[in-house]
Amino acid sequence: MSQDNAITAAILVIGDEILSGRTKDKNIGAIADVLTEIGVDLREVRIVPDVKEEIVAAVNALRARYTYVFTSGGIGPTHDDITADSIAEAFGVGIDVDPRARAMLLERHRPEDLNEARLRMARIPDGADLIANPISKAPGFRLGNVYVMAGVPQIMQAMLDEIRPTLTANAPVISETIEAGTIPEGNFAGGLAAIAAAHGAVSIGSYPSMTPEGFRNRIVVRGRDGAAVAAARAEVDALLATLRS
Amino acid sequence: MSQDNAITAAILVIGDEILSGRTKDKNIGAIADVLTEIGVDLREVRIVPDVKEEIVAAVNALRARYTYVFTSGGIGPTHDDITADSIAEAFGVGIDVDPRARAMLLERHRPEDLNEARLRMARIPDGADLIANPISKAPGFRLGNVYVMAGVPQIMQAMLDEIRPTLTANAPVISETIEAGTIPEGNFAGGLAAIAAAHGAVSIGSYPSMTPEGFRNRIVVRGRDGAAVAAARAEVDALLATLRS
Repeated sequence: MSQDNAITAAILVIGDEILSGRTKDKNIGAIADVLTEIGVDLREVRIVPDVKEEIVAAVNALRARYTYVFTSGGIGPTHDDITADSIAEAFGVGIDVDPRARAMLLERHRPEDLNEARLRMARIPDGADLIANPISKAPGFRLGNVYVMAGVPQIMQAMLDEIRPTLTANAPVISETIEAGTIPEGNFAGGLAAIAAAHGAVSIGSYPSMTPEGFRNRIVVRGRDGAAVAAARAEVDALLATLRS
Repeated sequence: MSQDNAITAAILVIGDEILSGRTKDKNIGAIADVLTEIGVDLREVRIVPDVKEEIVAAVNALRARYTYVFTSGGIGPTHDDITADSIAEAFGVGIDVDPRARAMLLERHRPEDLNEARLRMARIPDGADLIANPISKAPGFRLGNVYVMAGVPQIMQAMLDEIRPTLTANAPVISETIEAGTIPEGNFAGGLAAIAAAHGAVSIGSYPSMTPEGFRNRIVVRGRDGAAVAAARAEVDALLATLRS
């Protein structure tokens, strides 16, 4: 299913609280769902701590490699919110309080409440476009191919909704899920490998899960060409029918 | 809180199904919790697709950098399960059906059912130790500092339980959570930054969440030295008391 010139993406989650296990990430799955819906190939995810050198290194590795990079976390008002400064350093540009971002903060805060901490949320790297935050106003931003979003899932989602119409996408991926039920993976793996080898235009995966009644298996056929997906699916259905009979 | 010679770790999740959003990862949070409990610093997480070059590159980047690397996913019997072969390639060692692993599979499968696909699950890189799988028998393995586990959460957890007593750890991290309630982050951020700067032996984070009643903030003080954590916490408590009064 891979293709040259595909529109690709990576996610970079920033935050000690995810690495400590204290906060369970919800943003990776949410962003992955949106990218799949619109037809952008998510190729890599990284989670790094609130350490500037780590953020800079990850941003530079990912932005060179993928069409889009989406970050979440680290854009609040406290001392551990260092994402904006790290992005500026990664791109080698300056950063300062942005009048547009400051105006957004004034939609929520009185001028006398815009202390140094809150103004951190208006620090935007030079040359960035803002991403509106309808919930708490402090904006995200886009610099080059890097989209910087909040870590709070509801705000991240609102920012992603804002970004979504602006993204260039591939043809969406068509995905067919075939229930193999209790047929063991080891019984259909050989036949499935042969189908996968014969249908290079699709990707075929097998996903076991444990249920209270034992293992259940699902086979997923994915691709951008509907006819190719349908053809591969028909062969998988036939394979499973043989094994059930 | 960082320290030289700390015992560190990375997680590598392998699987197209996570990147497509179809499966929501649960293993990262589960492994993070265990590492925090026993005092190993989780420093980085990556998620990569079922593509050998990507797995090899990530394994080699992470194993050179951290004390331990934990992988999940890609050790089943189907054609898309390529983790074991990728690990062998990353280490530059051979891989073949391992008699110990084959014996484990025979605890679950009749000899006549050990077809080529099922024997894939007994392919173990040369020099690896096996990690028992009490649920479905197909083992994980450890090669060097890389622990290779299943993707199915229940099996991953069982393998992790098996590994856990063998890991060397730092002194455990003590974590104190302080409820800031509805006090806005922007009100305590300045004071918190000063406390963080004065207490280098601890790390202090501020974590907002959205509730139906609006934003709630939590401050977390973490460190290996109980007295240092208590001292920093006392200052945070005092700061919040001032802001509440």
